[in-house]
Formats: sequence, C-alpha cells, structure tokens
Amino acid sequence: MTGKLVIAGLGPGDDRLVTPEVTAALAAATDIVGYFPYVARVAPRAGLTLHPSDNRVELDRARAALDMAAAGRQVVVVSSGDPGVFAMASAVFEALEGRTDWQALDIRVLPGITAMLAAAAAAGAPLGHDFCCINLSDNLKPWAVIETRLRHAAKADLAMAFYNPRSASRPEGFARALDTLRQECGPDRLITFARAVSTPEERLLTVTLGEATPDMADMRTVVIVGNSATRRVGRWVYSPRSVVG
Amino acid sequence: MTGKLVIAGLGPGDDRLVTPEVTAALAAATDIVGYFPYVARVAPRAGLTLHPSDNRVELDRARAALDMAAAGRQVVVVSSGDPGVFAMASAVFEALEGRTDWQALDIRVLPGITAMLAAAAAAGAPLGHDFCCINLSDNLKPWAVIETRLRHAAKADLAMAFYNPRSASRPEGFARALDTLRQECGPDRLITFARAVSTPEERLLTVTLGEATPDMADMRTVVIVGNSATRRVGRWVYSPRSVVG
Repeated sequence: MTGKLVIAGLGPGDDRLVTPEVTAALAAATDIVGYFPYVARVAPRAGLTLHPSDNRVELDRARAALDMAAAGRQVVVVSSGDPGVFAMASAVFEALEGRTDWQALDIRVLPGITAMLAAAAAAGAPLGHDFCCINLSDNLKPWAVIETRLRHAAKADLAMAFYNPRSASRPEGFARALDTLRQECGPDRLITFARAVSTPEERLLTVTLGEATPDMADMRTVVIVGNSATRRVGRWVYSPRSVVG
Repeated sequence: MTGKLVIAGLGPGDDRLVTPEVTAALAAATDIVGYFPYVARVAPRAGLTLHPSDNRVELDRARAALDMAAAGRQVVVVSSGDPGVFAMASAVFEALEGRTDWQALDIRVLPGITAMLAAAAAAGAPLGHDFCCINLSDNLKPWAVIETRLRHAAKADLAMAFYNPRSASRPEGFARALDTLRQECGPDRLITFARAVSTPEERLLTVTLGEATPDMADMRTVVIVGNSATRRVGRWVYSPRSVVG
C-alpha cells in the first residue's frame, strides 16, 4: 500500500466550516497527527489511530507524520483554520529539506477557512480591501521584525489581521504593538477583537485604537485593524472597495 | 415571512471546497444574486430564482439583493472564493450606508476558501509566514497607491498574494508591478502563478522574478511572491515559519 500525507485545515471551529474535501480525507485516514485540541476534533473510529502532540513541537510532529506515510500509512496532519497560514504546512515542507526519500511521497495540502476570514465575516467586511496578515508571536522572529512590519503596513494603509496577538508567557508584545499602531494610525482607527469565532465562545468587540487595551485579546483572538477608510455601518465594520484617487 | 440576506463564498471552483454552511444557505434560498459565472455554479431547482448580472455592477447588485430581502425573500449573494476578499461583502455594506431600514435586516457573511489560500495549498506553503494580499486592478484605486503598497510590502519582507493581476483592458499594470518588484526584491525572488486552482484548468508555474513575464498571468490567475526566505523543496515552494534574529 502506498502511503500518503495530507495536511488538512479544519477551519476555525464549527464543523459546518470544514470542507467536504477535508471530511473525505479524514474518512480515508489511518492516522491523524496534530496539536491535541485539533486532533480532538476528529471522531475516533475503528482503524484510525490518533496521534495528539503538544504545542511547539511542529518539526518533530511533521517528521513523525512523514515517517508513517513512508511506511505506507494514510496520514492526515490536522491544523485549525488553514494549514498554510501559521500552521503545519510550512513545518512539513521544512522537514522535507535534505530528505529526497520523503520528497517522493504523495503529499497534499487541503485548504481551510482561516481564522481571519471567519472573523472578518462575523464582523462585516473589514478585510474587503488590501490587507496583511501578521503573526504577532515573537517565538519565531525578533520583535524588531514585527515592529518594522507594522510600520510599513500602516504606511501602506493596509488593513491588518493579527494571529497569536497575546501569549500568556509574553503578554507585553501586544501592548507594544498597540502603541506602535496608535503612533502610525492615530487614535480613531477601528480595531476588532474576534475571539473563538464560530464556536459557542465567540465574542466580537470593535473599538478605536484609542480605546483598545491589551487585555481585549488572548491567544484565541484574531485582531483586525482597519485601514484609514474602514468604517462602521449598522452593526458591522467594513472597508470600502475603492480608494479615491 | 422575514427576509434574510446571506453573502456566501463558493470557494475557488471545486464543489468539494464549498463549506456545508454555504451549501445549507443555498438550499434554503429563494433567490441567488451574483456575477453570472458564479450564479451558474448554483443548480436550478423549483422555488429558486437565479439573478445573474454582469461584472462591475456590484453596488446595483447589492441594492437589488437588499430590496428582495426587505420584501421577505431568502436571498443569497454569491461570490467566488471568500465574499470578504475583493468580493461582494464590502459592496453590500456600502449599500447599507444611509439606509437604516436595510440595516435592520438579518444579514450574514459566510466565509469561503479564498483563491490565494487554495493557490498556496496547491503550490506548497508560500504564505506560511507573514504576508499581504493586494488587488492589482486599478479600477478601484490609482496606480500610485498600488506601487506604494508593493514597495512597503517588499521593505517589510512580506510574502504577497495578488488578485486580478492582469486585465484584458489594462495589461500594462502587471508589467509595472513586476518591474517594481524586481527593483525591490531582486531577480532571484520566487514568484508563483496559480491559474484556475481546483478546476480542470488548474495550472501552476513557479519561476524567479528575473524569469517572470506579464503574460504568465491573466484574470483567472492568483500570483504569489515569496519573501526573502521563500524556497523550493522537492516539487513545492514554502516560506519557513521562522525569521532568524
């Protein structure tokens, strides 16, 4: 039997946001690999082995999955959201470096609904014009890189979506990000805190940068900062499609 | 009967990338509104009226949909990809401006798999680190704004995804974008042209900026430019998760 590795996105939480393509891949799997809360979203069944692992062991997890696929298993690596956005796809390709044996395997990435797009949909359309997507965790890059990116994004007048805004271990980073954004964008810019979108714990809050405080975000929150034209209408926030020349 | 307006994303083309949430909304609809090739993706049935319209009439289309919802219909406005990314969601919220009657309606946005994430999944994981998403059409903004955004994105070392890279009516814009990117990022930066991803016409091509020519893109192509660390491994392209400090 030829092994196969699928890297699948489970979407932000609601099963109605899992694509049929991903559902079919899960049904065909012999092994599910991933961070334990994501593996817990896959129903156990006969013939399926679940391999939950802890956070921050992405490369080890990728290698274990590739090893099983090389041994002929049908392996699905699960991520929440989209596997290509701050998730397992990059780790799997990183694990392929120097391993021509693994590079010959059947490997496919199946996209999913990423958190920022579920959050934007819940809030209205704050990402309806040009935007950027930045991981605020400084685990994987120095803070100076994050700050430079925030300043360029603001000068380019891009809307911004932030993943991992505030870790329990280093909460001060997000306070610095808010300070930088207030300097660049002023106090009236709209900012949306979207927590656990599409789950029973969903909570949406839109305020101005002047009103925003770091404790409005946690690690289950996606933060969206509007561009200079982003505005409220009724219960919603949206970015107009046009820039007037 | 109370009317309702749903703005739904059909994903990039393959029906297996339509979320169950969107499928359920289409099944409950009395009226489908949208650009004709997207409306054509919804199967006709008794009790369902299809309202296909031409391109570039987004605000008229949004108002017509809101009018029907206000009259008690169950209206679904369809976009390809995700409705919040350069699609109909912003147009609907724009149409709500000054219309408190319409603002009281039940309006929901249902996310979809947007083209850049389907393209990234097909190519590997080129958007696996911080990135931006820019519409290169100059219908809705002056070229100078696009150029400024490209330069800031390059200086921030963001990967970039471009929608609508090359229109039949103004093909010269994309040639200018490539020139700007070559100036900012050099000739060795990787660029992926992903055409009609998830359809039978899917075609993927990764070259360097030095090798890229404008005719590699058309309006069905999403273009992804890597960051300075984006690299090939095996048949794939990916952006590493880390920036070394």
